Amino acid sequence: MFENKSRTPLSELGEFKLIEHLTKTFTVSDETTVLGVGDDAAVLQLKDEQTVVTNDLLIEGIHFDLTYVPLKHLGYKAVMVNLSDVYAMNAVPKQITVSIAVSNRFPLEALEELYTGIGLACKNYKIDMIGGDTSSSTTGLMISITAIGQAKKEKITYRSGAKPNDLLVMSGDIGGAYMGLQVLEREKAVFKVNPNNQPDLAQYSYCVERQLKPEARKDIIELLAELDITPNAMIDISDGLSSEIFHLCKTSGVGCDIYEEKLPADPQTISIAEEFKINSTTALLNGGEDYELLMAIKTEDYDKIKSHPLLTTIGHFTDQKEVCNMTTGLGQSIKLEAQGWQNFNQE
Amino acid sequence: MFENKSRTPLSELGEFKLIEHLTKTFTVSDETTVLGVGDDAAVLQLKDEQTVVTNDLLIEGIHFDLTYVPLKHLGYKAVMVNLSDVYAMNAVPKQITVSIAVSNRFPLEALEELYTGIGLACKNYKIDMIGGDTSSSTTGLMISITAIGQAKKEKITYRSGAKPNDLLVMSGDIGGAYMGLQVLEREKAVFKVNPNNQPDLAQYSYCVERQLKPEARKDIIELLAELDITPNAMIDISDGLSSEIFHLCKTSGVGCDIYEEKLPADPQTISIAEEFKINSTTALLNGGEDYELLMAIKTEDYDKIKSHPLLTTIGHFTDQKEVCNMTTGLGQSIKLEAQGWQNFNQE
Repeated sequence: MFENKSRTPLSELGEFKLIEHLTKTFTVSDETTVLGVGDDAAVLQLKDEQTVVTNDLLIEGIHFDLTYVPLKHLGYKAVMVNLSDVYAMNAVPKQITVSIAVSNRFPLEALEELYTGIGLACKNYKIDMIGGDTSSSTTGLMISITAIGQAKKEKITYRSGAKPNDLLVMSGDIGGAYMGLQVLEREKAVFKVNPNNQPDLAQYSYCVERQLKPEARKDIIELLAELDITPNAMIDISDGLSSEIFHLCKTSGVGCDIYEEKLPADPQTISIAEEFKINSTTALLNGGEDYELLMAIKTEDYDKIKSHPLLTTIGHFTDQKEVCNMTTGLGQSIKLEAQGWQNFNQE
Repeated sequence: MFENKSRTPLSELGEFKLIEHLTKTFTVSDETTVLGVGDDAAVLQLKDEQTVVTNDLLIEGIHFDLTYVPLKHLGYKAVMVNLSDVYAMNAVPKQITVSIAVSNRFPLEALEELYTGIGLACKNYKIDMIGGDTSSSTTGLMISITAIGQAKKEKITYRSGAKPNDLLVMSGDIGGAYMGLQVLEREKAVFKVNPNNQPDLAQYSYCVERQLKPEARKDIIELLAELDITPNAMIDISDGLSSEIFHLCKTSGVGCDIYEEKLPADPQTISIAEEFKINSTTALLNGGEDYELLMAIKTEDYDKIKSHPLLTTIGHFTDQKEVCNMTTGLGQSIKLEAQGWQNFNQE
């Protein structure tokens, strides 16, 4: 993947020089950041709000495949995954630390690509990169990011606050990232057979971009603030809608009814599902990595959100503890299962 | 290494159950921790002080060798490495996040050992474990820890504040962890030849413990507070004394003179160095992983520290930018080099 580019072995730099080189274009600008990279620890002067902290790992061969994931996109996505967790608390992310472990098969130029993506994410979302660690690895690339955000105490939304009759509302659409992955995996298989084949991904561009370069829903947090809505509960949809619904219901001690026909999908997601002969509802319920927000909204806030194009009401919470039902397009009520469609189908 | 113990494959649990299982005995107790594990992010209500944040990676095959490092000790040490960075800012660590990536060669019982060590470190240092991530890896074990601490703004010590004439003072003694590593590496080689050989490490116990189970210098931070001393600069000694002195001098724009005969060493460190035919000054200047604190102390504070058993004055800072000299036992003045003894010897 780096064949046509210049290659500077990492051994030419050493650890101190490497981190210095990769982070030299990063400046800090948020008023809460006192010192970023360059000391034993970063220093923050946080405001009189609550602070949220989250950490995610991305491991080569488990979370990403460098055969078709450009490193710049990977850097961007690694930041998004973490920001999404901060937004899911209804908080504003301010800082990240980025640590990477990398084998010597990566030249310096590859890491520069990765940090370009990280830098772009920081710029777009006004995040300060304040520190981290760089290490060798025996195999592959590993990225560990910690994100720090802030919010007023009364604005923070936990998974545990959903109440019976609250509306189950989500941002954007789902299933796209999963279908994009199917397309990329198919192209990888084709490439193995015929390396001269140039894939034309234009007709799959929406879903491929959902997979490779997702955006965390900063806009939704800002929208909620504008509409003066604090959800009773919120979670980001990283492991599939069905799984996240179960998390909310379990933690809040409630159940829910959702409606198959309300599940928001892009037409391209549906058409790729048809092309791959995957049941589209399967893809919507269980496809991961959409990074949309799923929330419990009080019924009295319904008028504020009902016609908003970024939000869809897909059902409501009930007092039936951990019982999640879906009404199908044919009017049948079926039970959702935490582990998703496979168990679901066996009923 | 897990031959005589019960083995529960990680696949029996799955990611959610695994993190739940490993963290169930962890409770949060610091008044600044609102919520630990269990939501999209942890929530902190930090005091009106500055916050310090640091992250370190520990990678199997790079930072540790499970042939002779017990997992419980590894968990403890992984926490110490991060707390040491927080203490080096003259701050008090309060929370950590712990993320691990682990291959399926590790049974559940191995991870329980690791988390027992992490839990012991949290208990001894009054730290709340507030979150993290668990992932598969394709090979080996990787640990990423982020530590968060707090201090009053005027107490925070950067690397950049050392002034000419400040005293160069360090805690404890050095070189022990490095000599402990030599002993363990030798035992590993012996074990390979004769697996029935039972090593007797009693005579090496101090140095082996320095390597396997270091302690971060919480006591020194408390001592400085008691003595009403705020160092002008501070750094922890993780990569070897010589390297850390250069960091302080470079960042502060000063130089220093140190004295070979002042370098504090345990008698066992010296005797193991002799046994291994390693120049003991080499070991003291360049051996890593001691996790002692190195600081610039104002001359007017000298009376407060001069006879303290935990602190040693090894030299003083000068106005000669980045020029670091050591006066040997024989009265010669030689130049220290950033990369340590090897270049040093070639002069």
